[in-house]
Amino acid sequence: MMKNLNTFHLIKTCPDSKARVGELITPHGAVPTPAFLPVASQGTVKTLTPEEVKDMGIAMVLANTYHLYLRPGIPLIEKTGGLHKFMSWDGALLTDSGGYQIFSLASLRRVSDEGVVFRSHIDGSEHLITPELAIQYQEALGADIIMVLDECPAYDSSFEKVQRAMRRTHQWAERCQRAQKHSDQALYAIVQGGVFPELRHQSAEYLTSLDFPGYAIGGLSLGEPKKVTLNIIEETVALLPGNKPRYLMGVGSPEDIVEGVVRGIDLFDSALPTRVARNGALFTHLGRVNIGNAAYSQMEEPIDPDCDCYTCRTFSAAYLHHLFDCQELLAYKLATIHNLAFISWLMHKIEGAILDGTFNSFKDKFLASYQPTDEQIRLDQKQKWLKSRQVSRQLPPSGGAAESPWPH
Amino acid sequence: MMKNLNTFHLIKTCPDSKARVGELITPHGAVPTPAFLPVASQGTVKTLTPEEVKDMGIAMVLANTYHLYLRPGIPLIEKTGGLHKFMSWDGALLTDSGGYQIFSLASLRRVSDEGVVFRSHIDGSEHLITPELAIQYQEALGADIIMVLDECPAYDSSFEKVQRAMRRTHQWAERCQRAQKHSDQALYAIVQGGVFPELRHQSAEYLTSLDFPGYAIGGLSLGEPKKVTLNIIEETVALLPGNKPRYLMGVGSPEDIVEGVVRGIDLFDSALPTRVARNGALFTHLGRVNIGNAAYSQMEEPIDPDCDCYTCRTFSAAYLHHLFDCQELLAYKLATIHNLAFISWLMHKIEGAILDGTFNSFKDKFLASYQPTDEQIRLDQKQKWLKSRQVSRQLPPSGGAAESPWPH
Repeated sequence: MMKNLNTFHLIKTCPDSKARVGELITPHGAVPTPAFLPVASQGTVKTLTPEEVKDMGIAMVLANTYHLYLRPGIPLIEKTGGLHKFMSWDGALLTDSGGYQIFSLASLRRVSDEGVVFRSHIDGSEHLITPELAIQYQEALGADIIMVLDECPAYDSSFEKVQRAMRRTHQWAERCQRAQKHSDQALYAIVQGGVFPELRHQSAEYLTSLDFPGYAIGGLSLGEPKKVTLNIIEETVALLPGNKPRYLMGVGSPEDIVEGVVRGIDLFDSALPTRVARNGALFTHLGRVNIGNAAYSQMEEPIDPDCDCYTCRTFSAAYLHHLFDCQELLAYKLATIHNLAFISWLMHKIEGAILDGTFNSFKDKFLASYQPTDEQIRLDQKQKWLKSRQVSRQLPPSGGAAESPWPH
Repeated sequence: MMKNLNTFHLIKTCPDSKARVGELITPHGAVPTPAFLPVASQGTVKTLTPEEVKDMGIAMVLANTYHLYLRPGIPLIEKTGGLHKFMSWDGALLTDSGGYQIFSLASLRRVSDEGVVFRSHIDGSEHLITPELAIQYQEALGADIIMVLDECPAYDSSFEKVQRAMRRTHQWAERCQRAQKHSDQALYAIVQGGVFPELRHQSAEYLTSLDFPGYAIGGLSLGEPKKVTLNIIEETVALLPGNKPRYLMGVGSPEDIVEGVVRGIDLFDSALPTRVARNGALFTHLGRVNIGNAAYSQMEEPIDPDCDCYTCRTFSAAYLHHLFDCQELLAYKLATIHNLAFISWLMHKIEGAILDGTFNSFKDKFLASYQPTDEQIRLDQKQKWLKSRQVSRQLPPSGGAAESPWPH
């Protein structure tokens, strides 16, 4: 196994929960944990400049190998000096392997032990990804943390299907580990096993035995009930080594972050805060609100008077409502700034509370006052969103035969 | 006539042309002239924060009374402290009267001496504007410079039609002057008369006799050949008082600005630099280029190596090409920054050259190296753009009868 230059230090653990404060040291700076990684899928946190992201106190972002592989292509980014330089981001950077996108965005795929043949969601062209290629691409991109290629079945797949995918993910993790050449990147494994505790146990134990520098929990927050998510997180974290970072993939609502931290998670990523911002859904200290509501059209105060982000310092809710009403591009940026600043504030508060020994009461207070989105609405929205992607990604007929349409 | 607190000082006139350097003193700061005003139609320079606009050295922007009247409505902006506060812009601000938008955007209108009844391009609702209301709205908005209500016929209208519109514009200008109550705003007149030198003479002479603090030239750059535009500017400027600012409305390409300055224009506004930016058309020292061209997909240098704007300092042309290719919202912002910074650089160079006595050679050099968009392409684009607005603004059937469909 490759010795990596990234290290993780545990600084303090909460006496009342599994919450913990730590620090990830990367070649592009230290990342205090728990940390939330905004998503820069195509090499940009949508609507924001790198300076704006940094000014919010964000130390690490995530980019998608799948998207960058398709556009502008890995060779261009490698040739021009790597992804940090390409997107002008000098903070810490994590790339995922492309696994999740291939299994959610690509229109068709054929999985074998060798790898996955998939069709681009953009032009229908056919591509092959293998564990070795996933590492090769991520080494060319040059992020500080890179991920193994994993197979991600839909959340309602059968035990047998999830088990097969998990075993393949294990083999692929080993192949990724062997393929890694660069010592300045930390390669994290991804625990799979769906909603089956038995499989999660097997996955955590198997991957832990391979001694990765970090462990992600994949295949959650895909539409399963939240109680199930939280239960699987608990079961899985209990089997992961205490001195390694634990990364919960694809989770990023304020309430879910707090619940994840309680259960010992160190890293989170999700497009949710930035995606819902562009739809006008804004985080406030009292919960998520929609700026499109008529009530905001006359409100002279900022959307959240307790927030000191650029948007709230500078503009009234009425102005923001107006920008959304007119579909002005500035609307999406101001909302994105607000939501990421809110999450950044939340991570900072969580860190402080754990260090102070007051995390338990902070958590209770936050969850009592923060009105989460109703779970049914949330699941409906998720379904609608997945469906809209499916429709917008309908491809023109292509030469290859459709062997395995993905059940969205 | 209302004495206004805005003043204009002429600082230097070019010995070889009518170009001149001056300074407009407004309640919201000094504006060095010649100046270009970016358009903030709906209370935002599209994609940019007020700080970003200011950081580019831009001292004054223009907002549209027509747009703000429809959304969010004048009373809201007045109630919340005026337009400066609403949009968080503490620099100088100019509002137009709504005349141009009513005659280009509104779907139907009935003009009488009293005013114009028009239908909203958003929801088809019917509204009345009169010279008195135009002043009342602009006083409520509180810009530093406000404009008279004018009637703007299409550029290919008959002599008689243009003459009628001009005479009405003159009556309306007088009524606007009488209606003005606030002394902290400068009310500018608008010279009309289409492409007919005889009418332009009459209009300039008549309005000059009313002693406005500034004069705009309206009704140009509407599709007429450029030779005609330049000729009309020359004819009109010759009849305007030398000690008052001259404002050429709706003109904003780099080459047109230079040609306007040569002919004695002090102020320009246009949506062109920001609109074409969002379509990927970028100003460079060699002319206008399109970032979508495949050549830029591999270019490691910035789009204009001679430019020191944020976009060019920070990103390669390849990255910008990638953002446009992916339709990332950041693309539109980075392109807007670049084009406005280019215009800002140009205005600064023009000012310096006039002060140095080298304007004539600067102008020749600039026009020789800057490749303007081919005129035919330009006119075609304009037609296409006007047509697209017409199509996108098709309204649902409404109660009111369509008495006078506008010939777009």
